[in-house]
Amino acid sequence: MTPAAPVLAVDVGGTKLAAALVDDAGGVRRRHEVRSQPTSTGAGDELWSTLLGLIDEVVDGQRVAGVGVGCGGPARWPEGSVSPLNIPAWRDFPLRARLQERFRGVPVRLVNDAIAMAIGEHWEGAAAGDRNVLGVVVSTGVGGGLILDGRVRFGPTGNAGHVGHIVVEADGPVCGCGGRGCLEAVARGPAIVRWALDHGWEASSDDEPDGRALVTAARDGDEVARAAVCRCGEALGVALASTAHLLDLDVVAVGGGIANAGDLLFEPARAAFARHARMDFASRCRIVPATLGPDAGIVGAAALVACGDRYWPIGAD
Amino acid sequence: MTPAAPVLAVDVGGTKLAAALVDDAGGVRRRHEVRSQPTSTGAGDELWSTLLGLIDEVVDGQRVAGVGVGCGGPARWPEGSVSPLNIPAWRDFPLRARLQERFRGVPVRLVNDAIAMAIGEHWEGAAAGDRNVLGVVVSTGVGGGLILDGRVRFGPTGNAGHVGHIVVEADGPVCGCGGRGCLEAVARGPAIVRWALDHGWEASSDDEPDGRALVTAARDGDEVARAAVCRCGEALGVALASTAHLLDLDVVAVGGGIANAGDLLFEPARAAFARHARMDFASRCRIVPATLGPDAGIVGAAALVACGDRYWPIGAD
Repeated sequence: MTPAAPVLAVDVGGTKLAAALVDDAGGVRRRHEVRSQPTSTGAGDELWSTLLGLIDEVVDGQRVAGVGVGCGGPARWPEGSVSPLNIPAWRDFPLRARLQERFRGVPVRLVNDAIAMAIGEHWEGAAAGDRNVLGVVVSTGVGGGLILDGRVRFGPTGNAGHVGHIVVEADGPVCGCGGRGCLEAVARGPAIVRWALDHGWEASSDDEPDGRALVTAARDGDEVARAAVCRCGEALGVALASTAHLLDLDVVAVGGGIANAGDLLFEPARAAFARHARMDFASRCRIVPATLGPDAGIVGAAALVACGDRYWPIGAD
Repeated sequence: MTPAAPVLAVDVGGTKLAAALVDDAGGVRRRHEVRSQPTSTGAGDELWSTLLGLIDEVVDGQRVAGVGVGCGGPARWPEGSVSPLNIPAWRDFPLRARLQERFRGVPVRLVNDAIAMAIGEHWEGAAAGDRNVLGVVVSTGVGGGLILDGRVRFGPTGNAGHVGHIVVEADGPVCGCGGRGCLEAVARGPAIVRWALDHGWEASSDDEPDGRALVTAARDGDEVARAAVCRCGEALGVALASTAHLLDLDVVAVGGGIANAGDLLFEPARAAFARHARMDFASRCRIVPATLGPDAGIVGAAALVACGDRYWPIGAD
């Protein structure tokens, strides 16, 4: 018997494009990546050419069962025209349609990158075996994706799971979305870096003062860096308590660069969650680290095709 | 052709028990109610007898297609043993099992009263025709129920929809649940009555200083009463913005005694919502008054049987 053809999985982020072949057990091979170079706003076709080159290199003439894409939001869904915040070159870029032209006769499916991460963690990661799951990415932004009763919750516009815009401080800082006091405004990497700098933190001379440097400093014992990560964790815990009350969840899997802080993030997150989630059905929800790391988006994108019955809604093709 | 038998619908609340026959178009007839008299904690069987008497009066020997119940929470679900906060006489009272003994051979289904309200408003009320709905009851507590993609979201323990325990002020007042700053702690009737009394409001000499009196005073122009209702609306709007971001909703239908304040509640709720829900997919969500009034719970309970494919999950019988 011939093995099933692999899925081509693509992860489109603000700093890199990644692609890989993923088998029907979630195994990743031939993973390649290139910088996404968000240079000029007129360079949409140039970036598309770069992506095509990456894809051709990964596929290398093999047959694929389909194409799954996780892409920075926002996007029109399920049409799949994308306007990633961090890729100004693409505004309403018809990414799904372009890929459908390139891969005729097989499914091509696209979700935002946080939903792809959540799917990946549900399929083969920290939330495997659970049916009611929130996946959260704490990075430059704070994104999320929901699995309810074992199926992805997309919502009518494909935007369900925007946990980063749960309000954690009604009078808090203005958010990139235009709102105020969103989890993302308080807890995203650049916000906690800003907070740390304002409180006297200095990145070591080799490093940019970014989220990665902040997490490293926190792990190395810098008190201000630790307080900044703790602040992120507390806001996260409050938002997760609201989510658990609203949705009756089994588990939350937290990934993204800031999650590399480990217990420095998870302990305050769990403490804030425990303070606010007191009813049994809410307090039972576990908050755990994501386990697939940078592969979560790739694995989740592949699952859109490999396990389309669970992760892609009927009628969205 | 004989018309389909009606459903017996029961609404168990802290102050009254109501029952009615409901036809398959949501028409309510033979509605009766009695006080639920939450007297002693040992009077569980007495209350059960009262309920049976009410039911016999309503059914009057007719055949029914099944029994639907909305009951104050919490409850074990789907087993249907109930411990309504405001009915100390019932703790783990096996209400669903007792009704199954009384009505053999037809489905007997039970949900919490806020979920019943949401179902009622979705079936025949303010949210008819929408597929992604939150129903909210603002009364002695703040409860809710979710319809996602046209189906009830129960969650694994039947507790999804607890919008009253979304955190709106992380350092806010202690809530009855043991948490802090929940919407319910800020916005429930007794909390805004307390706030109004603390700010100089006095109920007229004929009235208990309760939510009903506060709403009447607000409608009559009392400034402190209006400010109290406004405070409730603002907290509600913040919680609904979080909900819309997380779930990608079409509409929120708000009922319960405090919603009788009309625009005095809805205007500040919509203003707070607009301040916090800025992305298109969230801001499109409408916030509307529930339309079924005190019948919503009865109609929703009936729908558990009359439209079980939409409102009752496979496997929960």
